[in-house]
Amino acid sequence: MAVYTEVADEDLEAFLATYDIGALRSIKGIAEGVENSNFLLHTDAGYFILTLYEKRVEEADLPFFLGLLEHLSARGVTCPQPVKNRRGAALGRLSGKPAAIVTFLDGVSIRRPDTRHCGMLGEALARMHAAGEGFPLRRANALSVNGWLPLFRRAEGRADEVLPGLAVTLAEEIATLGRSWPAGLPRGVIHADLFPDNVFFLAGKLSGLIDFYFACDDALAYDLAICLNAWCFEPDASFNITRGMAMINGYERVRRLEQPEIEALPALARGAALRFLLTRLVDWLDRTEGALVKPKDPLEYLKKLRFHQQAGGARDYGLLR
Amino acid sequence: MAVYTEVADEDLEAFLATYDIGALRSIKGIAEGVENSNFLLHTDAGYFILTLYEKRVEEADLPFFLGLLEHLSARGVTCPQPVKNRRGAALGRLSGKPAAIVTFLDGVSIRRPDTRHCGMLGEALARMHAAGEGFPLRRANALSVNGWLPLFRRAEGRADEVLPGLAVTLAEEIATLGRSWPAGLPRGVIHADLFPDNVFFLAGKLSGLIDFYFACDDALAYDLAICLNAWCFEPDASFNITRGMAMINGYERVRRLEQPEIEALPALARGAALRFLLTRLVDWLDRTEGALVKPKDPLEYLKKLRFHQQAGGARDYGLLR
Repeated sequence: MAVYTEVADEDLEAFLATYDIGALRSIKGIAEGVENSNFLLHTDAGYFILTLYEKRVEEADLPFFLGLLEHLSARGVTCPQPVKNRRGAALGRLSGKPAAIVTFLDGVSIRRPDTRHCGMLGEALARMHAAGEGFPLRRANALSVNGWLPLFRRAEGRADEVLPGLAVTLAEEIATLGRSWPAGLPRGVIHADLFPDNVFFLAGKLSGLIDFYFACDDALAYDLAICLNAWCFEPDASFNITRGMAMINGYERVRRLEQPEIEALPALARGAALRFLLTRLVDWLDRTEGALVKPKDPLEYLKKLRFHQQAGGARDYGLLR
Repeated sequence: MAVYTEVADEDLEAFLATYDIGALRSIKGIAEGVENSNFLLHTDAGYFILTLYEKRVEEADLPFFLGLLEHLSARGVTCPQPVKNRRGAALGRLSGKPAAIVTFLDGVSIRRPDTRHCGMLGEALARMHAAGEGFPLRRANALSVNGWLPLFRRAEGRADEVLPGLAVTLAEEIATLGRSWPAGLPRGVIHADLFPDNVFFLAGKLSGLIDFYFACDDALAYDLAICLNAWCFEPDASFNITRGMAMINGYERVRRLEQPEIEALPALARGAALRFLLTRLVDWLDRTEGALVKPKDPLEYLKKLRFHQQAGGARDYGLLR
């Protein structure tokens, strides 16, 4: 959440002149999006989000992200839709940064999702997976099994500052999952970061998905495992199986899980917990005292990992067959 | 610029239910307003700004600020207009903080104002002064002549870290202005912080004034002196007399300055420069390494102060009579 780049009036005016969305009426920096500078634009044509991509997003990945939003929008997924400039390009440059304009999406993210939200999320996730079919671009998941060891190396020396013994726990988990990581599962485009703050609801219905900047190609069930982690735990880190059941049922209303996916679910959930534990740990150790952006607690995901380590099967997540 | 307080869904819903502006469609934290948490609200009734007042705004002052916005709006000044809840109150509480909803104002602030902007600003300032007449509430200016010494005391010991000799310069200036501060000038409600980022333009016209959280009762010409400081200097700290002339002319198109105000202008401009020099110095010395909000350079205002110290009269600011 932040605005990292200030945009000069004349630069913005020149940038907007390359689009067909009328004159600028208002621009406000918004506290949304962890990695980029985001602005709410009001022009003669309506409301839009202007994003300036900062260092942590690879410029080479932008055609994948923007192309995916367009592909999904065209297939009925409500997500921000890139606005093309007069030359037909979704990506431009502003204040020295890659920049894009997308449509503004109404909706409110839910801080404490209930069973109904989880059911709707499961269904929307499966619809997104189905809509992703045929998307021609590819992007490897840098934060899956092959990414964990390099991530761990960045935090290894100081991990025990956060919790004594954490470095050993992480090393063992990376080794275990490295040996047993599920292969050959149905793959496709996954969101890979579909936390409650990236899902909008409106009038009791799921109204849209945002923030596709971790989207990539991977096992579809891994996306479900990420959502089980992000949506179905209580604040005390106990798993809420009613919410898990609602999410899996919702998913299966659209796309039925295959037997290997069901068997892989506990391992995928462990991997998902490890991924967020590692990235949060790195951010935690990198944090600046007094900075406005508070890093998220890595140990929340250690507790979730502990749950997954002892899970006996997909049944423990609410799958009843 | 920041969002200091997170608002829980259910709290927000309960808060909005006390208003007659329909259901929530979207809420985004916006990076605006130095001292408060601000959110852009979209509801069935349109776009609004929700502000949660943080520590640095005195709760006792809120009826003054909100009442003033209402008073000015009713008299033709385009500024955010408080939305009253169903009980007729402009001020409520949300997430443990005083909170208010105001109308959303279109417009874009200009980073590098030119002569035309300065002319329009002068005129709008005088219109605001006229519209403020009859406002029944009073608020003393805590950042005028009597406030400078206590402010200086907070920075005195470390002022020379910023520039050797600064503490002595400040002490002398406070003493000099304390002896000669103009009295008996026409008074009224002043904005007291009408920097370019608090003034919106749209399609080449001044479209609105925002951020009245320093507004108070003081000499009207002191407000003009603040604007001369904020709008009419070049980046190299030389005074642009063409812009000054445009601003004063714009002001006088609506309200003619009286002779004592004209004579007091250099002293008022010195005081205004000193006020921002002191508050910026305190913020600079209080700054946290790595924080996202960068404090503004206090020495910009030392350079402006030097200009005012050698000014011979209102003529040096562009007043031609």
